[in-house]
Amino acid sequence: MGELVFVGLGLHDEKGISLRGLEEAESADAVFIELYTSFMPNFSVEGFERVVGKKIHVVSRRQLEDENGKVVLDAAVRGKAVLLVPGDPLIATTHVALRLEAAKRGVRTRIVHAASIISAVIGLCGLHNYKFGKSVTIPFPSNFSETPYMVVAQNKKLGLHTLCLLDIDAEGNRHLSLREALEMLLTVEEKKRMNIVTNETLAVGVARAGSSNPKVKAGSVRELLGYDFGGPPYSLVFPGKLHFMEAEALIAFAWAPLSVRRFVE
Amino acid sequence: MGELVFVGLGLHDEKGISLRGLEEAESADAVFIELYTSFMPNFSVEGFERVVGKKIHVVSRRQLEDENGKVVLDAAVRGKAVLLVPGDPLIATTHVALRLEAAKRGVRTRIVHAASIISAVIGLCGLHNYKFGKSVTIPFPSNFSETPYMVVAQNKKLGLHTLCLLDIDAEGNRHLSLREALEMLLTVEEKKRMNIVTNETLAVGVARAGSSNPKVKAGSVRELLGYDFGGPPYSLVFPGKLHFMEAEALIAFAWAPLSVRRFVE
Repeated sequence: MGELVFVGLGLHDEKGISLRGLEEAESADAVFIELYTSFMPNFSVEGFERVVGKKIHVVSRRQLEDENGKVVLDAAVRGKAVLLVPGDPLIATTHVALRLEAAKRGVRTRIVHAASIISAVIGLCGLHNYKFGKSVTIPFPSNFSETPYMVVAQNKKLGLHTLCLLDIDAEGNRHLSLREALEMLLTVEEKKRMNIVTNETLAVGVARAGSSNPKVKAGSVRELLGYDFGGPPYSLVFPGKLHFMEAEALIAFAWAPLSVRRFVE
Repeated sequence: MGELVFVGLGLHDEKGISLRGLEEAESADAVFIELYTSFMPNFSVEGFERVVGKKIHVVSRRQLEDENGKVVLDAAVRGKAVLLVPGDPLIATTHVALRLEAAKRGVRTRIVHAASIISAVIGLCGLHNYKFGKSVTIPFPSNFSETPYMVVAQNKKLGLHTLCLLDIDAEGNRHLSLREALEMLLTVEEKKRMNIVTNETLAVGVARAGSSNPKVKAGSVRELLGYDFGGPPYSLVFPGKLHFMEAEALIAFAWAPLSVRRFVE
């Protein structure tokens, strides 16, 4: 009986996978990869084929979602199949759907974890994990939504931080920029007038988490709108109340102005 | 000028580190490790020394916290120091404190990410990341606290899931059990009577996330109280409202009773 092993690639490039993940790929009968649920700037399938020493089959969104992962599951019925995915597996709902499909076909599944953008951004900012509330994805302007603003509002009311992931269209090679994300929130502010995201609001922009040159910048929304973050992927954090140590971390590692100390509770 | 690189070990054993993390350790002038902020059941320092090919210095809580990491920072001033830490670095606040100390001494810091218990548990449960509210640590009974109960209550009111990490005392080799954690919450329930954690409440217990034999069991608190989860570490999730796919994932991968479908909104 076969099995399907979800192996996380971690962040950024071919070296984010764990030693165990690499072993699983090396011992698999068939290795697949999907690269559309997150963006890994320096990842090359050819480079990774050299690391693993075998052919890796790239599966598209159409194959995984519209065709219910048939190509992967057929291989997993016959032997050991590995599906390599960006970040930590099963955080993307499409992986959960595939795992359910596997269970329906009687295929055993396992997970090999790796770094996720979620904990990476928290660590880079130096903010405390247990002070984050619900997180949210900010969509492209063509899918304008008030939801991210309302999530930030709900968290702020509770004194909590908000992690915002910025949408990507990996197959179209498009990335929502931090500027576009902030502008969408300011547009909602103009309508709602709840004083949640104004030009003066403190925010933290993060670019290329997990790379050797991540950019982490804390400042007012106005300041971030004019800041050059370099290439994607991007995340955005709206801090709530700050612990003393969180304020110092933003000053030391995110170029925050000393005035962030006024948010310390 | 030296530098300090925080390298995540990921979960469970010597093979949770990323390829990049291993490279950083191999090229360091001095390698340190702390193993008290999280518990890695199958990790052996000697085994990892063989992987890295050099001596690794174990640092204690006293050295990192009471002595402000002096032994690590002295090495980081002289050359390239690597500090290996369980999970994803900088999620533990003690690492943030050390990074601030490094900045004060003019030592450059970098982070190499790895799997974190946070995203691992979310993935293992098959629950949606963006539906989690604030997380919380449940302390040992000797540090009895109503906070975890109140956090679950606040999240439930918003329809959100709660991730509870269970306290450990790595140096004393003690681990709060799922049974002890649930009993503390039931004790608070008796007093508060808010109908947040009763014997009938749905919860998900997770043991040994990141290992090859994680145990994930969803059921009523009564059911989990009598369930044998095996060895540590442990985590606990209190689901809020469920998406259809989340209910199916709990049934397929966490042995949840079919009745969890009644929590689908």
